[in-house]
Amino acid sequence: MMRGRFITMEGGEGAGKSTMMERVANWIEQSGRTVIRTREPGGTELAEKLREILLDRNNLQVSGKSELLLMFAARAQHLEELIRPALARGDWVLCDRFTDATWAYQGGGRGLPGEDIATLETLVHGDLKPDLTLLLDLPVEQGLLRASTRGQADRFEQESNAFFQRVRKAYLARAVAEPARFSVIDASQGQDTVWAQIRAVLQERLAP
Amino acid sequence: MMRGRFITMEGGEGAGKSTMMERVANWIEQSGRTVIRTREPGGTELAEKLREILLDRNNLQVSGKSELLLMFAARAQHLEELIRPALARGDWVLCDRFTDATWAYQGGGRGLPGEDIATLETLVHGDLKPDLTLLLDLPVEQGLLRASTRGQADRFEQESNAFFQRVRKAYLARAVAEPARFSVIDASQGQDTVWAQIRAVLQERLAP
Repeated sequence: MMRGRFITMEGGEGAGKSTMMERVANWIEQSGRTVIRTREPGGTELAEKLREILLDRNNLQVSGKSELLLMFAARAQHLEELIRPALARGDWVLCDRFTDATWAYQGGGRGLPGEDIATLETLVHGDLKPDLTLLLDLPVEQGLLRASTRGQADRFEQESNAFFQRVRKAYLARAVAEPARFSVIDASQGQDTVWAQIRAVLQERLAP
Repeated sequence: MMRGRFITMEGGEGAGKSTMMERVANWIEQSGRTVIRTREPGGTELAEKLREILLDRNNLQVSGKSELLLMFAARAQHLEELIRPALARGDWVLCDRFTDATWAYQGGGRGLPGEDIATLETLVHGDLKPDLTLLLDLPVEQGLLRASTRGQADRFEQESNAFFQRVRKAYLARAVAEPARFSVIDASQGQDTVWAQIRAVLQERLAP
């Protein structure tokens, strides 16, 4: 059986990931594939518990290094329990954030050493990378304005504008480093225009 | 100010660590030092939450790699929030289990690669090791018999006899590899005899 495709959606606050996740999932299903929708941190019972701890806004002290290790602990469980088995049985996996988000938030945002992130990336999923990463990119101010209309900010959403500028920059650097895997989508447009860009990428890169 | 001493207590189930922790703490206090008693996984609010997840007997699925990363996530927080500041202000730290337990339980017990443990050890506390590690050693059967008189077994205590044999073997291998740091205590004896051995070690290695 052919291994399924692994597609990740990345982007900062207010980039519209949730809406586009839905449309990408529908596109995959219409092509006759089974799609598993999941997210990080999360996707398994253990990882969702860790997500609660990581996003808790009334929050206990969490050091940068501890946060990084928790992200990869959640990811290790997610890979073993859900992602790898799904890909092995030929399903497609569509994941809201993956290791690129760790590079962006913990690396760019918090300034943790890239060396530590690379070490953990190799330890946890050395041989596995997404087949396609859609990076929904837009100016930080515009994203934060959109996100502000949602409920209470979680622990990450409470960060400063400068933090999110570093996150965006780190995401774009990842895309430049791996152009064959990434597709950068201009997410500052209306939903239909954003979807038209994404659909074109899916058809070009993933259509049978 | 002189950095305080970092003392760890290690050993399998039923080795009598709790009782001896108490006596060691008293000995340190009687020598006029401030002692911080703590434990792993745990010792901080975050790490105690992770401890609950790790020891939960009605337990969600936790892969070996995820368990290993969670242990080190808890440890990173413990080091940054409690251990390093205490040592820096000259206090002594007495800790019930530390990285040797990871080598014993995740390495020996679960059979996870030593290479992965060594990588995380370097990442989380490359430069910091205990000054003295007291390994309370006794035959597995005797320890399990003692432990069985306590309450419900946690997720680790439910493991098999063969698991604990591997744990003991891995602990002893650590002690052989680092004789200057370790002291192996025969914990199969009565409490007063065990304490006499420990007190002699403390006086030899740590008395002013």
